[in-house]
Amino acid sequence: MIPQWIIEKKRDGQPLSDADIRAFIDGFTAGQVPDYQMSALAMAIYFRGMTLAETTALTRVMLESGIRLDPRGWGRPAADKHSTGGIGDKISLVLAPLVAACGVAVPMISGRGLGLTGGTLDKLESIPGYRVDLTERAFQRVVAECGCSIIGQTRRLAPADRRLYALRDVTGTVPSIPLITASILSKKLAEGLDALVLDVKCGRGAFMRTPAMARRLARTLVDVAARLGTRSAALLSAMDRPTGRAAGNGPEVAEAIAALRGEGPADVRELTLALGVRMLTLTRACRTAGEARERLECAWQSGQGTQVLSRMIERHGGDPRVVDQPARLTAGARRRDVAAERSGYVADVDAESIGRACLVLGAGRRRTTDPVDPTAGLAGMKQVGDPVAAGEPLAVMTARSTRGMAEAARFVRAAFTVRREPVRTPPRWILGALS
Amino acid sequence: MIPQWIIEKKRDGQPLSDADIRAFIDGFTAGQVPDYQMSALAMAIYFRGMTLAETTALTRVMLESGIRLDPRGWGRPAADKHSTGGIGDKISLVLAPLVAACGVAVPMISGRGLGLTGGTLDKLESIPGYRVDLTERAFQRVVAECGCSIIGQTRRLAPADRRLYALRDVTGTVPSIPLITASILSKKLAEGLDALVLDVKCGRGAFMRTPAMARRLARTLVDVAARLGTRSAALLSAMDRPTGRAAGNGPEVAEAIAALRGEGPADVRELTLALGVRMLTLTRACRTAGEARERLECAWQSGQGTQVLSRMIERHGGDPRVVDQPARLTAGARRRDVAAERSGYVADVDAESIGRACLVLGAGRRRTTDPVDPTAGLAGMKQVGDPVAAGEPLAVMTARSTRGMAEAARFVRAAFTVRREPVRTPPRWILGALS
Repeated sequence: MIPQWIIEKKRDGQPLSDADIRAFIDGFTAGQVPDYQMSALAMAIYFRGMTLAETTALTRVMLESGIRLDPRGWGRPAADKHSTGGIGDKISLVLAPLVAACGVAVPMISGRGLGLTGGTLDKLESIPGYRVDLTERAFQRVVAECGCSIIGQTRRLAPADRRLYALRDVTGTVPSIPLITASILSKKLAEGLDALVLDVKCGRGAFMRTPAMARRLARTLVDVAARLGTRSAALLSAMDRPTGRAAGNGPEVAEAIAALRGEGPADVRELTLALGVRMLTLTRACRTAGEARERLECAWQSGQGTQVLSRMIERHGGDPRVVDQPARLTAGARRRDVAAERSGYVADVDAESIGRACLVLGAGRRRTTDPVDPTAGLAGMKQVGDPVAAGEPLAVMTARSTRGMAEAARFVRAAFTVRREPVRTPPRWILGALS
Repeated sequence: MIPQWIIEKKRDGQPLSDADIRAFIDGFTAGQVPDYQMSALAMAIYFRGMTLAETTALTRVMLESGIRLDPRGWGRPAADKHSTGGIGDKISLVLAPLVAACGVAVPMISGRGLGLTGGTLDKLESIPGYRVDLTERAFQRVVAECGCSIIGQTRRLAPADRRLYALRDVTGTVPSIPLITASILSKKLAEGLDALVLDVKCGRGAFMRTPAMARRLARTLVDVAARLGTRSAALLSAMDRPTGRAAGNGPEVAEAIAALRGEGPADVRELTLALGVRMLTLTRACRTAGEARERLECAWQSGQGTQVLSRMIERHGGDPRVVDQPARLTAGARRRDVAAERSGYVADVDAESIGRACLVLGAGRRRTTDPVDPTAGLAGMKQVGDPVAAGEPLAVMTARSTRGMAEAARFVRAAFTVRREPVRTPPRWILGALS
């Protein structure tokens, strides 16, 4: 195998064979193909794309670069959800315990925030003591005991993706549908799933800005998962506005806990149910969507979801008291209101601008090595349709330091469009579905 | 400077600023920007291209990464020629001594063969003892004494190009007009020239396959040179067929010497004159093309060109006896004729196939680290229009070993098209000119 011939083939728009892809990626994982050839190929893939067959081969090779978890010890079907990332997206923290409470194992391997988007691992680490770095064995045990567990990628799970993702991040090759697909699925299919549900975010606060792009990514994810023998479904969901009323790590965990108690905003609830229904039906834990919805509502109202979350936190070394006292998540933080300048109704909230406010407050990273402030973020955000009086808070900022708050407040104010007239049409949260 | 932001800018089709280009290339030359970011940017440039302003900035930064020769010691105007490379292109070895004999200094920094195309340095090294690795000081002295000198790129001349070229070669990013332009001009303008003439090859045996591509490259080269203050002109010349009747290193030096003696083929003579005329007029050593042509013819007929070549070889530690006894260049080589299978007239000779024959004989490299056989190649090749009788040689193969000769003979035979009817229109060697 001559790596530059494979690069040239892709550069010139010819499809790569399974053997080309295997030789290149295996060589890269083993350290024989240097980073500079991998990044050149990734950029050529960015421009030329990949056929479904190529994307499938790439995903398979990356999946097979590591181990695959054995689901037999869980004694029930297994499903997971992946979101392509957005502002205020705390759905995993609500969904995983609920679905687990409905009898489906959720062995979730998650990531950190990047760019403006938050990461589930960072959110969990705002719970004092919570460890995301369990071994695969400990992870398997927590799944068996609690029904769900959320950890970070280990060294043995899809190591090719681990290396490639770090390289893509610094070479401008992140937003490529075949590369995104192979990265997501190589990790998720290593979990030993029966079914996977994908939440493909679309809009100003997401990597996919247009519905057409989001639909293409969703189609590719579902088709490649099918070719690799895993049932899946994708929702396209709106990320023009933040999800829920909180953004940032501690603030989002607090909102997720509130949602599990039945006190969360409608969009968080609706998205959780839509994704959960598909997890229960795809795994055949429920026969119909109606039955699945009923089972989820029941687990929700009975408080079983909250119990699962509490147990999972404990098993990960975290302080389960946060479930009853969510104020512990932002303890010691400074607070400032961002007041509305005029009265009226919220007509729009720009997710990107809210993301920037959180970054400035310390909730996000500019580089992968930056630390985050677990208490930083926004809570009590007004949503589209809410009435607001001049002087009333549009959102409350929290952070350990007040340093970034003046700049963050400008981003928050810029995010909000307030109109005199009541807003008639409520925003749509789910834009489409495919499977 | 965040290198990935610059990569993303180019990837998304936005032009880079001078400051972007300088920060990135200076960082790369200093080892702060890693190879994997440079190769990703090079691939993005391959796909997106560069504006004239960007290509100029890139060339300037690469030129300024090293030293620039001081032409004052030569006491006369300086000019050089660069060819984009082809099969049988030995023009530099004829042209440099002739132009030097006409009173213009020719400080030529040359390269090695790559792919199927030959390199002037490899050709010169077929002269026993010839050293291409003089210091800049020794090089300057040879130019002052002989009027011309031909060496390889030193560590201090355009080091950014040195690093980038090695990387492009293994990452599929060679055939990009802005990258080719910056690579050629950063080396050539470091020579401290008054004028530069470019021989842009076009056809089956060249990197630029179509006249449109060759014209685009020529236009870019001339425009960037002008913006950097060096007068230049470009010829587009045909590389569908090999230049001359010899290909390979020793065989081509022998043909160049024959040409200087007035015994060379018409195409070598015509190209040399066309390029030489422009070197003499652009430097204003001659006022008109007619005067320049006359001066070149005079240097040619009087044997002054041969004398300059002989002196230059001697100053480089080479054996000047090859000038009188060119058979020394292929001494010890085995020889085999490739006989014509039918009688008629040569209608076509495919340069690419001739290049492959030479590669198989040992004249070229598959990788930059491969050694070459200085005696390997073809001599006495029939040219388009030549009559040929069945059994008469189409070409004579030479090499130290007969191992590749059967395969090479097949490539030679495949290169030739012989027709019964005489060929009416002679091939065109010069397709166009621009300045």
